[in-house]
Amino acid sequence: MSGAKLLGVGVGPGDPELITLKALRALKEADVVVHFAKAGCASRARAIAAAHFCGEATEISLLYPMTTELPRSDDGYRNALRAFYDDAAARIANHLEQGRRVAVICEGDPLFYGSYMHLHARLSPRFPTEIVPGVTGISGCWSAAATPIAQGDDVFTVLPATLPEVEIARRLSDADAAVVMKIGRHLPKLRRALTKSGRLARAIYVERGTMSDAKLMPLAAKSDDHAPYFAVVLVPGWEERP
Amino acid sequence: MSGAKLLGVGVGPGDPELITLKALRALKEADVVVHFAKAGCASRARAIAAAHFCGEATEISLLYPMTTELPRSDDGYRNALRAFYDDAAARIANHLEQGRRVAVICEGDPLFYGSYMHLHARLSPRFPTEIVPGVTGISGCWSAAATPIAQGDDVFTVLPATLPEVEIARRLSDADAAVVMKIGRHLPKLRRALTKSGRLARAIYVERGTMSDAKLMPLAAKSDDHAPYFAVVLVPGWEERP
Repeated sequence: MSGAKLLGVGVGPGDPELITLKALRALKEADVVVHFAKAGCASRARAIAAAHFCGEATEISLLYPMTTELPRSDDGYRNALRAFYDDAAARIANHLEQGRRVAVICEGDPLFYGSYMHLHARLSPRFPTEIVPGVTGISGCWSAAATPIAQGDDVFTVLPATLPEVEIARRLSDADAAVVMKIGRHLPKLRRALTKSGRLARAIYVERGTMSDAKLMPLAAKSDDHAPYFAVVLVPGWEERP
Repeated sequence: MSGAKLLGVGVGPGDPELITLKALRALKEADVVVHFAKAGCASRARAIAAAHFCGEATEISLLYPMTTELPRSDDGYRNALRAFYDDAAARIANHLEQGRRVAVICEGDPLFYGSYMHLHARLSPRFPTEIVPGVTGISGCWSAAATPIAQGDDVFTVLPATLPEVEIARRLSDADAAVVMKIGRHLPKLRRALTKSGRLARAIYVERGTMSDAKLMPLAAKSDDHAPYFAVVLVPGWEERP
């Protein structure tokens, strides 16, 4: 297994031009390219990197065992996920044991809320690994909105909209800048928490932030409370500008 | 000014291979390339992008008016910075008024704790702008450390070590994952805050995270309290792994 290496490769937030030179090289040198997808959907990481596949690598598509995310307190969900990642790690280990270079491509950055982390935790104790960082989805969103997010001594927080309303309001009041993820059906609750914390007027709603059909608007101007799971809300900091 | 455009271009955390294709195109198409540097030092963004300069663009080097950062409550510091950014914006506006494409290259991501934001705030109301996001310095650090930073419903926080000890300890206790920036002379205080919040054992010290001479170690194993200003400390979350 002299050439064996596991690479977690960030391909950026969506725009295929936001891939790095290092990610391109990792793709080109890989014997095996691995990506995650929901059953029935094309892998988003695969779609981002599509133009750069050399076509000679073996491809492995890992299909998540469920299509909607459940609370992580749910035992059935945890067990199904654990089995899924165990099985995926075993398939990849088989290639690594044969000395292959395996690139797991990921939307955004591999170690920032990415599925690759589950493979890394299982395989990095046994095989050489390398991480190729990528532009995160949230950088893609505030860039699409051309909104400076944090500066100087700002405290910046990322939080999921799945938290209780009181908790979201408290955390929004306690941070200079914030990004709220996993909006979906939590938007009415998030709107109330933003109002309570006095941050609604600054909040920007972003849907498909780095796609050509991106939807961006002040949250206060969004007239309904429908949102997809992957929408985010930006609360820019930097209130004291020199 | 038909072709006039201001671009904030992230060139990534340090490794020249971590630049995106979009940033390369922005550099290639620019009539004017602008970078920030400390007086007497080469611009780090310029060094990262050096291999990709076409050499035909006009270059503007903006030299910060001071070499160490002071508290932003200091009026002299604020005034000097304001004058510096006003002057820089005026120089760039002059090029934009002549219909030129101006790329301001930035380490990391332009809108995440970047100096470009000061130019953006001054110029974006008057000229067309575009942001090319980049891989952040902190992504570069946790990738160099191969440390999964945040997952699932983790709350992730970025905070400066310049905050009071009690405040740092409170915020570390309140987040699942954190990155502490601007370490320098604040390391002894940060170490105490990490101890108080029970997070010292998880903390990883990173210096020059994406340089070939990077220095990475568990903070608990770092025997002294010397650190440069740009060192960071990672406190990984994701304690409950499925």
